Amino acid sequence: MSTISIASAAEVFELLKPDLAAIELEFARQSGSPVAVVTDIANYLIAGGGKRIRPLLLLLSAKALNCESQARIRLGAVVEMLHTATLVHDDIIDEASTRRGRPSSNTTWGNAKCVLAGDWLYMQAFQTALGERNFRILDLLISLTQQMVEGELLQMEKLGHLINEEEYFDLIYRKTACLFRVSMQLGAVIANPSALEGERPFEETLGEYGRNLGLAFQIVDDVLDLTANDDVLGKPAASDLREGKATLAVIHALERGTGADREAIRMVLADRSFNRVTHADILEILYRHGSIAYAMDTACAYAEAARQSLAELPENEYKRALLWVPGFVTSRDR
Amino acid sequence: MSTISIASAAEVFELLKPDLAAIELEFARQSGSPVAVVTDIANYLIAGGGKRIRPLLLLLSAKALNCESQARIRLGAVVEMLHTATLVHDDIIDEASTRRGRPSSNTTWGNAKCVLAGDWLYMQAFQTALGERNFRILDLLISLTQQMVEGELLQMEKLGHLINEEEYFDLIYRKTACLFRVSMQLGAVIANPSALEGERPFEETLGEYGRNLGLAFQIVDDVLDLTANDDVLGKPAASDLREGKATLAVIHALERGTGADREAIRMVLADRSFNRVTHADILEILYRHGSIAYAMDTACAYAEAARQSLAELPENEYKRALLWVPGFVTSRDR
Repeated sequence: MSTISIASAAEVFELLKPDLAAIELEFARQSGSPVAVVTDIANYLIAGGGKRIRPLLLLLSAKALNCESQARIRLGAVVEMLHTATLVHDDIIDEASTRRGRPSSNTTWGNAKCVLAGDWLYMQAFQTALGERNFRILDLLISLTQQMVEGELLQMEKLGHLINEEEYFDLIYRKTACLFRVSMQLGAVIANPSALEGERPFEETLGEYGRNLGLAFQIVDDVLDLTANDDVLGKPAASDLREGKATLAVIHALERGTGADREAIRMVLADRSFNRVTHADILEILYRHGSIAYAMDTACAYAEAARQSLAELPENEYKRALLWVPGFVTSRDR
Repeated sequence: MSTISIASAAEVFELLKPDLAAIELEFARQSGSPVAVVTDIANYLIAGGGKRIRPLLLLLSAKALNCESQARIRLGAVVEMLHTATLVHDDIIDEASTRRGRPSSNTTWGNAKCVLAGDWLYMQAFQTALGERNFRILDLLISLTQQMVEGELLQMEKLGHLINEEEYFDLIYRKTACLFRVSMQLGAVIANPSALEGERPFEETLGEYGRNLGLAFQIVDDVLDLTANDDVLGKPAASDLREGKATLAVIHALERGTGADREAIRMVLADRSFNRVTHADILEILYRHGSIAYAMDTACAYAEAARQSLAELPENEYKRALLWVPGFVTSRDR
């Protein structure tokens, strides 16, 4: 085992290649439904790709604790399936027309089928998790899902309004960090499946890693939404602002900006369009106040907090991969 | 304890009055969410009433087996909450404008919030069920929910098309009888919570009762949809035909009718309206072929099968109530 730190995504993927392939198979197998349209929608979503970062975290967490149980494959598929279920319902809610550069599932199948396909994916994920016969796993997954759903509802209530940093962090915890956290915790649970509640080594600290990483990930996602162009994102640029969502850099500029700056931002959020104020106008305000840099610095601080959470973890190549992930997350450009 | 059979709904409700009141409280308590809109939608749905027949079945099943565990109250609320979650999502799918004589929840809050409120209710139901720490309960509830969701998707695929009796029975099993069955089974599970899989006395036979009763219930519902008027139903008459759904009497007439009869029915299903053929025309066809009587006779046969399922059950007032329910279900007019 090398003591040199991991330096590239290729190395991490190489380390997990057979497991990630097994998870793809399991995900496809689990998405097979007696009802053809469920299988169609699920296959469409599987083919759409996605970074598979949640299963990757679960695998690294389990393997860092020397767990090679088959549960890592099944639960890896479960966390990706839950993530997919939330995307299907979110696309209905956001009336999204594209997702990852392709038509969104609601555009292709209509809202009604997508409501049900999302429900089905939730149930299939729980069904698979239930097969592990471990109440802790179910506690984590069901309260996770409820928190994510509540987060989406809170997000809806806040659309078009100015929010503060505290509200923003609650929203991105529910949207992203909560599932990252649970993916990491599940790795610890299956490494010691029969441990008593609260007596599982590293469940808490690995969960903290996931939470911090998830916050960093979403902050970067929100910055990229503001700064990248359509082609890179596979969706219209600044779609958060077009949907009335204020994210970290925008909140920063609102707190520091001149009256005219605040008014410009308020207008875009209320209009949910760039009809009266352009995207370039907003970017100029954000750069002038150092708001983009502030958001990126905050993401980097969470990434560092994630690394710190691993201090007590035994040294091995999976720990090294976990130490590498936060830097990857904060330096990506899409 | 009287040996005289139960003769009225009032007697059954009197028998269960404190338990049904406790379930209402539990249902209201469980619907309290940190997110205001969830509580609003849930309270609206609770106030809308409904027959509470699923909790009633669960109570009768548990009590017929001498179970007085508090689980009967919690799970009584769970089955009603699952039922409510399916209604919220169904209203989105059917684009319903009314439900039980009031504006439907999607009309009031919009599709997006209702997708999420339905998701939340599912999770809350599972959360509560998970509190029982009994895998059999979770197995029943999660596979139930998946079957119901698949049923709705199958229903959508068949809208506007002619279906046969076998397809019809599969659909109404998933739509109604499956939850009736599980409500009865849960009563048996909590009466013997630690019994081994497959070794729980009466789980199978009480489940059969629920299945037969549920089929009878839905057949009658479908007949009432065809024959009752708007005021009695609290929704537009013949809304199944308006939505392109062929139910038992209609399937019977399609198999027995003249070419012109078949064509008239086909037209309504394809048009999803009575623009070319009137509701009265369809009723004339159904009565002429004895199709309404056929459907009611079928419902009565399932009701009788439900009663027969109870043959081995010990005699007590709850068994007598269970023997009374099927007749009530087939003789109701709304």
